[in-house]
Amino acid sequence: MLSNEIKEKLISIVTKENFADSKTERLVYSYDATPNFQSMPDAVVSPRNTAEVSEILKLCNQYKFPIVPRGSGTNLCAGTCPTEGGVVLLFKHMNKILEIDEENLTITVQPGVVTLDMIHAIEEKGLFYPPDPSSMKISTIGGNINENSGGLRGLKYGVTRDYVIGLKAVLPNGDIIATGGKLAKDVAGYDLTRLFVGSEGTLVVITEATLKLIPMPETRKTMLALYQDLGAAAQSVSKIIASKIIPTTLEFLDQPTLKVVEDFAQIGLPTNVQAVLLIEQDGPPEVVERDMEKIAEVCKQENAVSIQVAATEEEADALRTARRAALSAIARLKPTTILEDATVPRSEIANMVKAINEITEKYQLTICTFGHAGDGNLHPTCATDARDHEEMERVEKAFAEIFEKAIELGGTITGEHGVGAMKAPYLEWKLKAEGIAAMKAIKQAFDPNNIMNPGKVFAKDSKKRVVITR
Amino acid sequence: MLSNEIKEKLISIVTKENFADSKTERLVYSYDATPNFQSMPDAVVSPRNTAEVSEILKLCNQYKFPIVPRGSGTNLCAGTCPTEGGVVLLFKHMNKILEIDEENLTITVQPGVVTLDMIHAIEEKGLFYPPDPSSMKISTIGGNINENSGGLRGLKYGVTRDYVIGLKAVLPNGDIIATGGKLAKDVAGYDLTRLFVGSEGTLVVITEATLKLIPMPETRKTMLALYQDLGAAAQSVSKIIASKIIPTTLEFLDQPTLKVVEDFAQIGLPTNVQAVLLIEQDGPPEVVERDMEKIAEVCKQENAVSIQVAATEEEADALRTARRAALSAIARLKPTTILEDATVPRSEIANMVKAINEITEKYQLTICTFGHAGDGNLHPTCATDARDHEEMERVEKAFAEIFEKAIELGGTITGEHGVGAMKAPYLEWKLKAEGIAAMKAIKQAFDPNNIMNPGKVFAKDSKKRVVITR
Repeated sequence: MLSNEIKEKLISIVTKENFADSKTERLVYSYDATPNFQSMPDAVVSPRNTAEVSEILKLCNQYKFPIVPRGSGTNLCAGTCPTEGGVVLLFKHMNKILEIDEENLTITVQPGVVTLDMIHAIEEKGLFYPPDPSSMKISTIGGNINENSGGLRGLKYGVTRDYVIGLKAVLPNGDIIATGGKLAKDVAGYDLTRLFVGSEGTLVVITEATLKLIPMPETRKTMLALYQDLGAAAQSVSKIIASKIIPTTLEFLDQPTLKVVEDFAQIGLPTNVQAVLLIEQDGPPEVVERDMEKIAEVCKQENAVSIQVAATEEEADALRTARRAALSAIARLKPTTILEDATVPRSEIANMVKAINEITEKYQLTICTFGHAGDGNLHPTCATDARDHEEMERVEKAFAEIFEKAIELGGTITGEHGVGAMKAPYLEWKLKAEGIAAMKAIKQAFDPNNIMNPGKVFAKDSKKRVVITR
Repeated sequence: MLSNEIKEKLISIVTKENFADSKTERLVYSYDATPNFQSMPDAVVSPRNTAEVSEILKLCNQYKFPIVPRGSGTNLCAGTCPTEGGVVLLFKHMNKILEIDEENLTITVQPGVVTLDMIHAIEEKGLFYPPDPSSMKISTIGGNINENSGGLRGLKYGVTRDYVIGLKAVLPNGDIIATGGKLAKDVAGYDLTRLFVGSEGTLVVITEATLKLIPMPETRKTMLALYQDLGAAAQSVSKIIASKIIPTTLEFLDQPTLKVVEDFAQIGLPTNVQAVLLIEQDGPPEVVERDMEKIAEVCKQENAVSIQVAATEEEADALRTARRAALSAIARLKPTTILEDATVPRSEIANMVKAINEITEKYQLTICTFGHAGDGNLHPTCATDARDHEEMERVEKAFAEIFEKAIELGGTITGEHGVGAMKAPYLEWKLKAEGIAAMKAIKQAFDPNNIMNPGKVFAKDSKKRVVITR
């Protein structure tokens, strides 16, 4: 609980209407999109500008209470769950597009802008911002930056980090700093811009961002390749890229995913095949045409049983929407949905899918696997019930084995969802004690009082490694 | 001077033949490509592997003596000048290409590999590593990573940072950590990979790097556009990009540069025009053809007096070589050559060139300006004589005004050369005291004893801002 003194001081910064601490309002911000994590904040505040954020942080730092910056809470790593209480910081007033600069190809935004709204504004100018996380209809750009969000176009175009070129950020001591700028190149000191991207609100509060834009690709084509063999689908992914084509999108959906998505979206997806690749290419028409032909050839060589090219943009959009709906569709199966994002080198996709299937079998679970195959970034997603403690124990063991396998294959515990509170206990598996120590030193340097989204990234205890026995 | 005890310990790590401390050998490593900086190291050691680097760092840390990692010393910011003595670390034994992975499109290298040798090995496989710093014939990839080097292809393809996806690095305490991997995506904790890129050897010693590769563009075309008006050339740069074409290369050379380059290279460059744009596009033939036509149209509209497309790859190569030779050519004019890289938003190129010319006039200096116009990254280069103290004072004042102007235009003090010892006094102009404090906190966290390339990035004193009076 915040003392009356702190409460009064917070109100004096943001005004009464931007402060809330009723039980109902606190409850709303006690959880995010991550199942099984809930914790009540002490208050919710909505600053109107960077100066107010600075004042709030000074106060938090003085009284050593936690601050949890939050966009729309769509993250899947319990990154915005106020696990240690404190103040949730909302950006509902700081939600403006400040400028689209068509000469320098940049956009400058406040953190509260909804990603898709921003993308629409950009596309109206004939420009392109590639990162398109599946939650983009609801997510905010501030959330995307803090989590370094990926999306379906990451294979060709990279992730959020690759587009952030300048930030305004508030340090825990209230200092306001500006990093980068409308600059294609800047090596003036350490790369704080990229350090802050993906730092999950544990170092600074970002209050403004300048993003790089690129010209809108002229055209786009979408293809579905169907397989009766998982290995063949995975092999196609490697072969396409080894043949020196980088498609915009190279998504994988296994049969269990196809079934639930079709059941949900009813768009005529094939459910009698083992796996589907959703492949897109964009660019100049001649190039797209040629690439799609080559891709189709590779898929055929790798024993795709059918290859369908979307005839219209509507048809293509339905396929993309179906892919984006995978999480919602699986969520209908059972009360609890746990979506993971273990990531491996692209060449190991076949081995990873095989391992996920074996682990699913071993623990007798319902796991649908889909994801960004071109990035080696899979989303094994478990439909379960948090109230069934016995099953939840099996779920946890299964995911621990999945993480371990990913690391064994040269991969990582999270490709695009972040560590948050959920994966913090596993971080040491990837980074070793020395890597964690290096990161903790940075955290300590910025935030000695540990007020910035505490309990995220760094765990009190690391999970013991399981021993994989097969 | 190193004590005999330390000397013996260093020899016991690297063996006698990999330790040197004669005056001659120390003299060789007392300077780099930056004029006016020289300082003797105490010794020069050449470790053979990461384990030896770790042992050396433990020793440095224990006895608190400086360590200066050095590639070929081609940097232009006095980044590898041992300004505080200590041990220079050479990578002559750690110069292997460890693997080119054609399935994951990665290369794994040791820091001592010469950039161009690496690029040749990559291109033999039909793959492409875009960063091409002008020094690439001599520079090492370790140096490129530590300085986050740019190059002529940065406009379309980005800089070194955009290709580094995994590192092996040794911390000052001797800990060996691995960051990233052969992974298109990885958000497991803070982005140490990008923090280390461009950190100029002040945080860690990098002993291995995994770089992302892309498919080799099918074809490439090269064009020269000549102008009698500097503003028109600069305006063309903005217009080309605003017309939604991103060329691979968009280089600018002013008349003084053209004259000295032609005098040096004798390839028939026009010397009777005020400015030249060297423009390249690569990609599928149809696209390159179309883009080059559009670019030529824009240049004509902006009053280019002549447009010449290179007829053969040899002709194109001569043009690129001429551009790369600019620094060497200017270096022939006078004993001392000071090359800077103030960088501005692309839309401010015309204003920046105008300001450079006014400042040159005001201080009565010989400054040739060329550079990566598409990136807003200019290289005003002064031919002077370090022995002429009166002139050197004017040179310093002129560059201070250039930096100030760049910042005023939303730019930075260095786009690709780094801060080193040379620009450290100016860093605060860009970052403000708060930004410097944040970076110093990181430095302190990693290197509490300040053994890692001390005197670089952070200055003992900041320069006072000059007051621009015109």
